[in-house]
Amino acid sequence: MEFSPLVEQLIESLRCLPGVGRKSAQRAAFHLLERDRRGANELAEALQQAMSEVGHCQQCRNYTEQELCTICQSPKRQAASVLCIVESPADLMALEQSGQFHGRYFVLYGHLSPLDGIGPEQLGLNLLEQQLIKGTTEEVVLATNPTVEGDATAHYIAEICSRHDIKASRIAHGVPVGGELEYVDGTTLARSFAGRTSMD
Amino acid sequence: MEFSPLVEQLIESLRCLPGVGRKSAQRAAFHLLERDRRGANELAEALQQAMSEVGHCQQCRNYTEQELCTICQSPKRQAASVLCIVESPADLMALEQSGQFHGRYFVLYGHLSPLDGIGPEQLGLNLLEQQLIKGTTEEVVLATNPTVEGDATAHYIAEICSRHDIKASRIAHGVPVGGELEYVDGTTLARSFAGRTSMD
Ligand SMILES: [Zn+2]
Ligand SMILES: [Zn+2]
Repeated sequence: MEFSPLVEQLIESLRCLPGVGRKSAQRAAFHLLERDRRGANELAEALQQAMSEVGHCQQCRNYTEQELCTICQSPKRQAASVLCIVESPADLMALEQSGQFHGRYFVLYGHLSPLDGIGPEQLGLNLLEQQLIKGTTEEVVLATNPTVEGDATAHYIAEICSRHDIKASRIAHGVPVGGELEYVDGTTLARSFAGRTSMD
Repeated sequence: MEFSPLVEQLIESLRCLPGVGRKSAQRAAFHLLERDRRGANELAEALQQAMSEVGHCQQCRNYTEQELCTICQSPKRQAASVLCIVESPADLMALEQSGQFHGRYFVLYGHLSPLDGIGPEQLGLNLLEQQLIKGTTEEVVLATNPTVEGDATAHYIAEICSRHDIKASRIAHGVPVGGELEYVDGTTLARSFAGRTSMD
Protein backbone atom coordinates (compact mmCIF):
# COMPACT_ATOMS: atom_id res chain seq x y z
CA MET A 1 0.00 0.00 0.00
CA GLU A 2 1.15 3.52 -0.79
CA PHE A 3 0.03 7.01 0.08
CA SER A 4 -2.22 8.82 -2.38
CA PRO A 5 -0.57 9.50 -5.77
CA LEU A 6 0.15 13.18 -5.13
CA VAL A 7 1.58 12.48 -1.68
CA GLU A 8 3.75 9.67 -3.12
CA GLN A 9 4.90 12.00 -5.88
CA LEU A 10 5.81 14.66 -3.32
CA ILE A 11 7.75 12.19 -1.17
CA GLU A 12 9.68 10.83 -4.14
CA SER A 13 10.41 14.33 -5.47
CA LEU A 14 11.82 15.44 -2.12
CA ARG A 15 14.48 12.76 -2.50
CA CYS A 16 16.27 14.91 -5.07
CA LEU A 17 17.60 16.82 -2.05
CA PRO A 18 21.06 15.66 -0.90
CA GLY A 19 21.00 13.32 2.09
CA VAL A 20 17.22 12.90 2.04
CA GLY A 21 16.08 9.27 2.08
CA ARG A 22 12.57 7.86 2.00
CA LYS A 23 11.92 8.38 5.72
CA SER A 24 13.06 11.98 5.89
CA ALA A 25 11.25 12.75 2.64
CA GLN A 26 8.08 11.38 4.20
CA ARG A 27 8.61 13.46 7.34
CA ALA A 28 9.18 16.58 5.26
CA ALA A 29 6.10 15.93 3.10
CA PHE A 30 3.86 15.50 6.15
CA HIS A 31 5.37 18.52 7.86
CA LEU A 32 4.62 20.70 4.82
CA LEU A 33 1.14 19.28 4.24
CA GLU A 34 0.17 19.62 7.86
CA ARG A 35 1.97 22.72 9.06
CA ASP A 36 3.45 24.80 6.29
CA ARG A 37 1.58 24.77 2.99
CA ARG A 38 2.46 28.40 2.50
CA GLY A 39 6.19 27.74 2.96
CA ALA A 40 5.91 24.81 0.55
CA ASN A 41 4.31 26.98 -2.12
CA GLU A 42 6.98 29.63 -1.64
CA LEU A 43 9.64 26.93 -1.96
CA ALA A 44 8.04 25.71 -5.19
CA GLU A 45 8.16 29.20 -6.64
CA ALA A 46 11.72 29.80 -5.47
CA LEU A 47 12.81 26.53 -7.06
CA GLN A 48 11.20 27.34 -10.40
CA GLN A 49 12.58 30.89 -10.51
CA ALA A 50 16.09 29.86 -9.52
CA MET A 51 16.26 26.88 -11.88
CA SER A 52 15.10 28.88 -14.87
CA GLU A 53 16.93 32.15 -14.21
CA VAL A 54 20.13 31.49 -12.26
CA GLY A 55 23.14 30.97 -14.46
CA HIS A 56 26.87 31.59 -14.17
CA CYS A 57 28.60 34.96 -14.22
CA GLN A 58 30.29 35.30 -17.60
CA GLN A 59 33.48 36.45 -15.96
CA CYS A 60 33.93 34.55 -12.69
CA ARG A 61 31.32 31.75 -13.08
CA ASN A 62 29.70 32.59 -9.72
CA TYR A 63 25.93 32.07 -9.59
CA THR A 64 23.95 35.03 -10.83
CA GLU A 65 20.73 35.75 -12.68
CA GLN A 66 22.47 38.56 -14.57
CA GLU A 67 25.34 38.54 -17.07
CA LEU A 68 27.83 39.56 -14.41
CA CYS A 69 27.63 38.89 -10.67
CA THR A 70 27.65 41.70 -8.09
CA ILE A 71 31.38 41.37 -7.51
CA CYS A 72 32.23 41.52 -11.21
CA GLN A 73 29.91 44.52 -11.57
CA SER A 74 31.85 46.47 -8.94
CA PRO A 75 34.48 48.78 -10.56
CA LYS A 76 36.52 48.69 -7.33
CA ARG A 77 36.74 44.90 -7.33
CA GLN A 78 37.42 44.81 -11.05
CA ALA A 79 40.36 47.19 -10.65
CA ALA A 80 42.02 44.71 -8.29
CA SER A 81 45.13 42.95 -9.55
CA VAL A 82 44.60 39.83 -7.46
CA LEU A 83 42.36 36.99 -8.61
CA CYS A 84 41.28 34.29 -6.16
CA ILE A 85 40.33 30.83 -7.39
CA VAL A 86 37.85 28.74 -5.43
CA GLU A 87 36.17 25.39 -5.96
CA SER A 88 32.62 26.50 -5.18
CA PRO A 89 30.36 29.52 -4.60
CA ALA A 90 30.15 28.45 -0.95
CA ASP A 91 33.93 28.83 -0.66
CA LEU A 92 33.71 32.26 -2.29
CA MET A 93 31.10 33.22 0.28
CA ALA A 94 33.24 31.90 3.16
CA LEU A 95 36.20 34.02 1.97
CA GLU A 96 33.99 37.09 1.53
CA GLN A 97 32.76 36.65 5.08
CA SER A 98 36.32 36.48 6.39
CA GLY A 99 36.65 40.07 5.05
CA GLN A 100 40.27 39.54 4.07
CA PHE A 101 40.05 39.67 0.31
CA HIS A 102 38.86 42.50 -1.92
CA GLY A 103 39.90 41.29 -5.36
CA ARG A 104 38.25 39.24 -8.05
CA TYR A 105 37.23 35.58 -7.96
CA PHE A 106 36.98 32.66 -10.28
CA VAL A 107 34.78 29.67 -9.43
CA LEU A 108 35.82 26.23 -10.71
CA TYR A 109 32.76 24.22 -9.57
CA GLY A 110 34.94 21.32 -8.56
CA HIS A 111 38.50 20.17 -9.04
CA LEU A 112 40.40 18.19 -11.67
CA SER A 113 39.21 14.61 -11.53
CA PRO A 114 40.11 12.75 -14.74
CA LEU A 115 38.37 9.55 -13.63
CA ASP A 116 35.08 11.46 -13.35
CA GLY A 117 35.65 13.17 -16.68
CA ILE A 118 36.36 16.52 -15.03
CA GLY A 119 39.20 18.17 -16.92
CA PRO A 120 40.36 21.77 -17.48
CA GLU A 121 37.41 22.49 -19.77
CA GLN A 122 34.80 21.51 -17.18
CA LEU A 123 36.47 23.84 -14.67
CA GLY A 124 36.33 26.76 -17.13
CA LEU A 125 40.11 27.06 -17.34
CA ASN A 126 39.87 28.34 -20.94
CA LEU A 127 37.79 31.24 -19.69
CA LEU A 128 40.28 31.77 -16.87
CA GLU A 129 43.22 31.83 -19.26
CA GLN A 130 41.46 34.38 -21.47
CA GLN A 131 41.22 36.65 -18.45
CA LEU A 132 44.85 36.15 -17.50
CA ILE A 133 45.87 37.09 -21.06
CA LYS A 134 44.09 40.43 -20.67
CA GLY A 135 47.02 41.39 -18.48
CA THR A 136 45.30 43.04 -15.49
CA THR A 137 46.07 40.17 -13.12
CA GLU A 138 49.32 40.31 -11.15
CA GLU A 139 48.66 37.50 -8.73
CA VAL A 140 46.44 34.45 -8.65
CA VAL A 141 45.60 33.13 -5.18
CA LEU A 142 44.76 29.44 -5.31
CA ALA A 143 42.12 28.84 -2.64
CA THR A 144 41.10 25.35 -3.73
CA ASN A 145 40.46 22.87 -0.91
CA PRO A 146 43.55 21.45 0.85
CA THR A 147 42.88 17.95 -0.50
CA VAL A 148 44.90 15.86 -2.96
CA GLU A 149 42.59 16.92 -5.81
CA GLY A 150 42.49 20.56 -4.68
CA ASP A 151 46.30 20.64 -4.52
CA ALA A 152 46.64 19.03 -7.96
CA THR A 153 44.20 21.56 -9.40
CA ALA A 154 46.11 24.42 -7.78
CA HIS A 155 49.36 23.18 -9.30
CA TYR A 156 47.78 22.81 -12.71
CA ILE A 157 46.52 26.41 -12.60
CA ALA A 158 49.87 27.63 -11.21
CA GLU A 159 51.48 26.28 -14.36
CA ILE A 160 49.05 28.23 -16.53
CA CYS A 161 49.95 31.34 -14.51
CA SER A 162 53.67 30.78 -14.95
CA ARG A 163 53.19 30.52 -18.72
CA HIS A 164 51.75 34.05 -18.57
CA ASP A 165 54.31 35.36 -16.06
CA ILE A 166 51.71 35.81 -13.35
CA LYS A 167 52.53 35.10 -9.74
CA ALA A 168 50.57 32.16 -8.28
CA SER A 169 50.15 31.71 -4.53
CA ARG A 170 48.41 29.12 -2.40
CA ILE A 171 46.44 29.93 0.76
CA ALA A 172 48.05 28.38 3.81
CA HIS A 173 47.98 28.13 7.62
CA GLY A 174 45.04 26.92 9.55
CA VAL A 175 42.94 25.29 6.91
CA PRO A 176 42.93 21.71 8.21
CA VAL A 177 44.34 19.27 5.66
CA GLY A 178 41.60 17.06 4.24
CA GLY A 179 38.98 19.52 5.44
CA GLU A 180 36.54 21.57 3.43
CA LEU A 181 37.00 25.32 3.09
CA GLU A 182 33.33 26.02 3.41
CA TYR A 183 33.31 24.88 7.05
CA VAL A 184 36.34 26.79 8.31
CA ASP A 185 35.74 29.78 10.61
CA GLY A 186 36.44 33.29 9.38
CA THR A 187 39.49 33.95 11.55
CA THR A 188 41.24 30.84 10.36
CA LEU A 189 40.40 31.70 6.78
CA ALA A 190 41.68 35.25 7.21
CA ARG A 191 44.96 33.92 8.62
CA SER A 192 45.33 31.37 5.86
CA PHE A 193 44.79 34.11 3.33
CA ALA A 194 47.39 36.40 4.88
CA GLY A 195 49.93 33.59 5.13
CA ARG A 196 49.70 32.53 1.49
CA THR A 197 52.97 31.38 -0.07
CA SER A 198 54.30 31.64 -3.59
CA MET A 199 53.91 28.51 -5.69
CA ASP A 200 57.25 28.78 -7.53
CA MET B 1 27.70 39.95 1.10
CA GLU B 2 24.99 37.59 0.00
CA PHE B 3 24.42 35.32 -2.96
CA SER B 4 22.35 36.66 -5.85
CA PRO B 5 18.71 37.44 -4.90
CA LEU B 6 17.21 34.31 -6.47
CA VAL B 7 19.85 32.06 -4.91
CA GLU B 8 19.26 33.70 -1.51
CA GLN B 9 15.52 33.24 -1.94
CA LEU B 10 16.01 29.58 -2.78
CA ILE B 11 18.26 29.00 0.24
CA GLU B 12 15.83 30.73 2.60
CA SER B 13 12.83 28.88 1.14
CA LEU B 14 14.51 25.51 1.62
CA ARG B 15 14.57 26.21 5.35
CA CYS B 16 10.84 25.47 5.53
CA LEU B 17 11.91 21.80 5.49
CA PRO B 18 12.19 20.24 8.95
CA GLY B 19 15.75 20.03 10.29
CA VAL B 20 17.22 22.13 7.47
CA GLY B 21 19.37 25.04 8.69
CA ARG B 22 21.21 27.67 6.68
CA LYS B 23 24.21 25.46 5.84
CA SER B 24 22.22 22.46 4.65
CA ALA B 25 19.84 24.74 2.73
CA GLN B 26 22.87 26.22 0.98
CA ARG B 27 24.22 22.76 0.18
CA ALA B 28 20.86 21.68 -1.18
CA ALA B 29 20.49 24.83 -3.29
CA PHE B 30 23.94 24.39 -4.85
CA HIS B 31 23.36 20.69 -5.39
CA LEU B 32 20.14 21.40 -7.28
CA LEU B 33 21.54 24.34 -9.27
CA GLU B 34 24.64 22.43 -10.25
CA ARG B 35 23.51 18.86 -10.62
CA ASP B 36 19.77 18.41 -10.65
CA ARG B 37 17.77 21.27 -12.14
CA ARG B 38 15.33 18.76 -13.57
CA GLY B 39 14.73 17.17 -10.17
CA ALA B 40 14.27 20.62 -8.66
CA ASN B 41 11.63 21.53 -11.23
CA GLU B 42 9.84 18.25 -10.63
CA LEU B 43 9.94 18.96 -6.91
CA ALA B 44 8.47 22.41 -7.49
CA GLU B 45 5.59 20.93 -9.44
CA ALA B 46 5.01 18.14 -6.91
CA LEU B 47 4.92 20.71 -4.11
CA GLN B 48 2.39 22.90 -5.89
CA GLN B 49 0.14 20.00 -6.87
CA ALA B 50 0.20 18.42 -3.43
CA MET B 51 -0.35 21.67 -1.54
CA SER B 52 -3.33 22.67 -3.65
CA GLU B 53 -4.96 19.27 -4.09
CA VAL B 54 -4.19 17.02 -1.14
CA GLY B 55 -6.77 17.23 1.62
CA HIS B 56 -8.12 14.87 4.25
CA CYS B 57 -10.37 11.87 3.66
CA GLN B 58 -13.85 12.83 4.81
CA GLN B 59 -14.18 9.60 6.71
CA CYS B 60 -10.79 8.70 8.19
CA ARG B 61 -8.88 11.99 7.74
CA ASN B 62 -5.97 10.25 5.95
CA TYR B 63 -4.31 12.32 3.21
CA THR B 64 -6.05 12.04 -0.14
CA GLU B 65 -6.75 14.18 -3.17
CA GLN B 66 -10.22 12.62 -3.42
CA GLU B 67 -13.23 12.74 -1.10
CA LEU B 68 -12.43 9.34 0.31
CA CYS B 69 -9.01 7.68 0.56
CA THR B 70 -8.27 4.31 -1.08
CA ILE B 71 -8.93 2.40 2.14
CA CYS B 72 -12.28 4.09 2.70
CA GLN B 73 -13.20 3.44 -0.93
CA SER B 74 -12.66 -0.31 -0.51
CA PRO B 75 -15.99 -2.12 0.23
CA LYS B 76 -14.05 -4.95 1.95
CA ARG B 77 -12.34 -2.56 4.37
CA GLN B 78 -15.53 -0.64 4.97
CA ALA B 79 -17.39 -3.83 5.91
CA ALA B 80 -14.86 -4.40 8.73
CA SER B 81 -16.13 -4.00 12.27
CA VAL B 82 -12.78 -2.92 13.69
CA LEU B 83 -11.58 0.69 13.56
CA CYS B 84 -7.95 1.52 14.29
CA ILE B 85 -6.97 4.95 15.56
CA VAL B 86 -3.52 6.35 14.80
CA GLU B 87 -1.78 9.65 15.41
CA SER B 88 -0.45 10.15 11.89
CA PRO B 89 -0.62 8.91 8.29
CA ALA B 90 2.92 7.56 8.75
CA ASP B 91 1.65 5.35 11.59
CA LEU B 92 -1.21 4.17 9.39
CA MET B 93 1.33 3.27 6.72
CA ALA B 94 3.52 1.42 9.22
CA LEU B 95 0.52 -0.66 10.35
CA GLU B 96 -0.51 -1.37 6.77
CA GLN B 97 2.98 -2.60 6.04
CA SER B 98 2.87 -4.96 9.01
CA GLY B 99 -0.02 -6.65 7.14
CA GLN B 100 -1.82 -7.48 10.37
CA PHE B 101 -4.85 -5.24 10.13
CA HIS B 102 -7.56 -5.19 7.49
CA GLY B 103 -10.14 -2.89 9.05
CA ARG B 104 -10.75 0.84 8.92
CA TYR B 105 -8.60 3.66 10.26
CA PHE B 106 -9.02 7.07 11.78
CA VAL B 107 -6.13 9.55 11.77
CA LEU B 108 -5.90 12.06 14.63
CA TYR B 109 -2.95 14.16 13.34
CA GLY B 110 -1.50 14.43 16.82
CA HIS B 111 -2.62 13.77 20.37
CA LEU B 112 -4.45 15.70 23.06
CA SER B 113 -2.21 18.53 24.22
CA PRO B 114 -4.23 21.20 26.04
CA LEU B 115 -1.21 23.46 26.52
CA ASP B 116 -0.74 23.62 22.74
CA GLY B 117 -4.44 24.19 22.18
CA ILE B 118 -4.95 20.70 20.78
CA GLY B 119 -8.25 19.39 22.10
CA PRO B 120 -10.83 16.82 20.92
CA GLU B 121 -11.99 19.09 18.11
CA GLN B 122 -8.51 19.45 16.58
CA LEU B 123 -8.17 15.66 16.56
CA GLY B 124 -11.49 15.27 14.72
CA LEU B 125 -13.13 13.41 17.59
CA ASN B 126 -16.56 14.78 16.63
CA LEU B 127 -16.22 13.13 13.24
CA LEU B 128 -15.05 9.96 14.96
CA GLU B 129 -18.05 9.91 17.29
CA GLN B 130 -20.43 10.38 14.35
CA GLN B 131 -18.98 7.25 12.82
CA LEU B 132 -19.22 5.29 16.05
CA ILE B 133 -22.91 6.28 16.30
CA LYS B 134 -23.57 4.70 12.89
CA GLY B 135 -23.25 1.39 14.71
CA THR B 136 -21.04 -0.62 12.36
CA THR B 137 -18.02 -0.52 14.67
CA GLU B 138 -17.64 -3.32 17.21
CA GLU B 139 -14.12 -2.59 18.34
CA VAL B 140 -11.83 0.42 18.35
CA VAL B 141 -8.09 -0.36 18.46
CA LEU B 142 -6.16 2.53 19.95
CA ALA B 143 -2.80 2.61 18.18
CA THR B 144 -1.67 6.01 19.43
CA ASN B 145 2.00 6.28 20.37
CA PRO B 146 3.03 4.69 23.70
CA THR B 147 3.84 8.08 25.23
CA VAL B 148 2.14 9.93 28.09
CA GLU B 149 0.15 12.01 25.59
CA GLY B 150 -0.64 9.04 23.35
CA ASP B 151 -1.87 7.07 26.37
CA ALA B 152 -4.01 9.98 27.60
CA THR B 153 -5.53 10.35 24.16
CA ALA B 154 -6.23 6.62 24.01
CA HIS B 155 -8.00 6.78 27.36
CA TYR B 156 -10.05 9.78 26.30
CA ILE B 157 -11.23 7.95 23.16
CA ALA B 158 -11.84 4.75 25.13
CA GLU B 159 -14.33 6.72 27.23
CA ILE B 160 -16.17 7.88 24.13
CA CYS B 161 -16.31 4.25 23.03
CA SER B 162 -17.70 3.09 26.33
CA ARG B 163 -20.48 5.71 26.06
CA HIS B 164 -21.53 3.98 22.85
CA ASP B 165 -21.01 0.44 24.13
CA ILE B 166 -18.12 -0.21 21.80
CA LYS B 167 -15.13 -2.26 22.89
CA ALA B 168 -11.88 -0.27 23.03
CA SER B 169 -8.49 -1.99 22.97
CA ARG B 170 -4.93 -0.74 23.09
CA ILE B 171 -2.07 -2.18 21.03
CA ALA B 172 0.53 -3.76 23.25
CA HIS B 173 3.78 -5.79 23.33
CA GLY B 174 6.90 -4.75 21.69
CA VAL B 175 6.26 -1.12 20.97
CA PRO B 176 9.02 0.43 23.09
CA VAL B 177 7.63 2.86 25.67
CA GLY B 178 8.52 6.43 24.75
CA GLY B 179 9.25 5.38 21.17
CA GLU B 180 7.46 6.38 18.01
CA LEU B 181 5.25 3.94 16.17
CA GLU B 182 6.47 5.04 12.78
CA TYR B 183 9.95 3.64 13.44
CA VAL B 184 9.01 0.21 14.77
CA ASP B 185 9.65 -2.80 12.51
CA GLY B 186 6.72 -4.71 10.98
CA THR B 187 7.12 -7.88 13.04
CA THR B 188 7.03 -5.99 16.32
CA LEU B 189 4.03 -4.02 15.14
CA ALA B 190 2.24 -7.20 14.06
CA ARG B 191 2.88 -8.74 17.48
CA SER B 192 1.74 -5.63 19.30
CA PHE B 193 -1.43 -5.67 17.25
CA ALA B 194 -2.18 -9.32 17.94
CA GLY B 195 -1.53 -8.86 21.66
CA ARG B 196 -3.84 -5.88 22.11
CA THR B 197 -5.69 -5.78 25.43
CA SER B 198 -9.12 -4.51 26.36
CA MET B 199 -9.18 -1.07 27.90
CA ASP B 200 -11.94 -1.74 30.44
ZN1 LIG C 1 31.36 37.39 -11.45
ZN1 LIG D 1 -10.23 7.35 4.44
